Amino acid sequence: MQAITFDGKQPKFVTNRPHPEPTSGEVVIRPTRLGICSTDLEICRGYMGFTGVLGHEFVGVVESVAPKAGREVRQWVGKRVVGTINCTCGRCDMCRKGLKEHCRDRTVLGIAGRDGCFAEQFVLPARNLLEVPEHVDDDQAVFTEPLAAAYQIVRQLTVEGRPYITVLGDGRLGLLCAQVLSQLNATVRCLGKHPEKLQLCEKWGVKHRLVSEVGLRQDQDIVVDCTASATGLPMAMQMVRPRGTIVLKTTVAPQVDGKQIDLSPLVINEVNVVGSRCGPFPDALAALSAQQIDVVSLISRRMRLSDGADALRTARRSDVVKVLLEV
Amino acid sequence: MQAITFDGKQPKFVTNRPHPEPTSGEVVIRPTRLGICSTDLEICRGYMGFTGVLGHEFVGVVESVAPKAGREVRQWVGKRVVGTINCTCGRCDMCRKGLKEHCRDRTVLGIAGRDGCFAEQFVLPARNLLEVPEHVDDDQAVFTEPLAAAYQIVRQLTVEGRPYITVLGDGRLGLLCAQVLSQLNATVRCLGKHPEKLQLCEKWGVKHRLVSEVGLRQDQDIVVDCTASATGLPMAMQMVRPRGTIVLKTTVAPQVDGKQIDLSPLVINEVNVVGSRCGPFPDALAALSAQQIDVVSLISRRMRLSDGADALRTARRSDVVKVLLEV
Ligand SMILES: [Zn+2]
Ligand SMILES: [Zn+2]
Ligand SMILES: [Zn+2]
Ligand SMILES: [Zn+2]
Repeated sequence: MQAITFDGKQPKFVTNRPHPEPTSGEVVIRPTRLGICSTDLEICRGYMGFTGVLGHEFVGVVESVAPKAGREVRQWVGKRVVGTINCTCGRCDMCRKGLKEHCRDRTVLGIAGRDGCFAEQFVLPARNLLEVPEHVDDDQAVFTEPLAAAYQIVRQLTVEGRPYITVLGDGRLGLLCAQVLSQLNATVRCLGKHPEKLQLCEKWGVKHRLVSEVGLRQDQDIVVDCTASATGLPMAMQMVRPRGTIVLKTTVAPQVDGKQIDLSPLVINEVNVVGSRCGPFPDALAALSAQQIDVVSLISRRMRLSDGADALRTARRSDVVKVLLEV
Repeated sequence: MQAITFDGKQPKFVTNRPHPEPTSGEVVIRPTRLGICSTDLEICRGYMGFTGVLGHEFVGVVESVAPKAGREVRQWVGKRVVGTINCTCGRCDMCRKGLKEHCRDRTVLGIAGRDGCFAEQFVLPARNLLEVPEHVDDDQAVFTEPLAAAYQIVRQLTVEGRPYITVLGDGRLGLLCAQVLSQLNATVRCLGKHPEKLQLCEKWGVKHRLVSEVGLRQDQDIVVDCTASATGLPMAMQMVRPRGTIVLKTTVAPQVDGKQIDLSPLVINEVNVVGSRCGPFPDALAALSAQQIDVVSLISRRMRLSDGADALRTARRSDVVKVLLEV
């Protein structure tokens, strides 16, 4: 079958990937729409040690299950679904604590130990699936995973009063976080480097500014770092107020010749730093279903699975927000 | 008068420092016991931009006030006191929010913009003072400031269940934090590099291990970094469980040739990092008064103010916990 794979060196479009075999708890999904995200681009830089089929953002239709699958698995056949990406053991201390996204033995779709969704078919445990409401179309549903990541912030923070919130970064995730947070009782601004991306905020009634035009006053209650850049955290420390909160949404691989970050402002100002990763799919689907979040405006390009490495290159361009793949 | 000063290059004992002049809200204090802490040693490395009289840990007697001082200031004369070290404006946004330790215009005793207590006399606003209970002696009372810093952790954390807590560092602050946290409903262990310091934990019934002997299993609910070393945070990230908390108690100046720290585990494991600085003096005095914390065992050396730079050198030795100065 067709797939986009990463061999440890570079991404490649291949046509001879064997079809996946589901285990008894898994379903086979044929994706209809795929999303390229920064994690995919990070993987392609080789820092994450992953090889195999790329991709974790999808919407698709369940095609088949293993011959011996039970009723609760078989019932999914024919349904249009999205799916959470962490495949968990159910037995470790984290799973038993209800922190299954942090399962010690997890595999992660297209990220760690498990082939991803950039293929004609892929497998996922049935218990990871959520049915997509009929009036949420494929273009919207494919944003469920990154939108859930934005909603994770809402779950982790206690927002009191009417806080001042800054979202650093006008990329895919920054623009979603800015929209989600502006639905709280908060004053939200999105800071970025790209006027044409920030322009999207205008449409949503979200304040926005070029980061170069903003004073660094340590007056923000919450700063959300979506920059995926080594400059994000130092800038966040200059913007957050004493006893404020910095949310880290993106990871940055340390650079060999990179400067050490001075973390002493965290202690001096008693700042709270919260790492934030995957989020609640039901919250994201509910928001899409209620038309609360505009995801379609983020789509910059529609390409095909067969565009392979080209599609990933396009997603890396600074003037591009979201690249969707059609299969 | 005699004082230990820092001129931007090195600490010095001087005998010709002019006596301080109190403003109408301030009192003149004659210290009886002084404590040397890591912050003093950091200042002497020149990274913090402070010059003047060093020192912020003291117990002493109020000797005099300004001629025009009001009753609420005059009432302190003759009392044995300790004092908080942040001198605040009362007008800025932080002061108005009740976060006066984070006052935008603060001066800090012997740390920023204000002469410290390593002198025959020094001044402090009367509103910073707390009277020392009679049965808390000077050797105990001089630990109020660092002990308050340990109690700050208790104020910032929500401890549920019976958490596993690791204190990294067997120095002055680490040993105080280990004692304070072991009074919570928690399993506390103190990790360090110095068998003779860790031995103190034995006396207090606190678990302890050499850090080199401990497996890195990401299973601790809370890790408190008291190492004042660039290796503290990376080690804490390897010990804390997913969704756990790292408390940063000590600052580290970034080294020019230092390695960049990989902060991605914070995001991947959704760790909470809490910066923690000054703490509640009343809690510390109450604990000393109730004999809940053994501070006297931390005293390694008693020296004199006139020992000057020698005393600071002694405090830097790895086999020394606390150096007290008598005036
Ligand atoms: Zn993604
Ligand atoms: Zn598990
Ligand atoms: Zn101190
Ligand atoms: Zn103030």
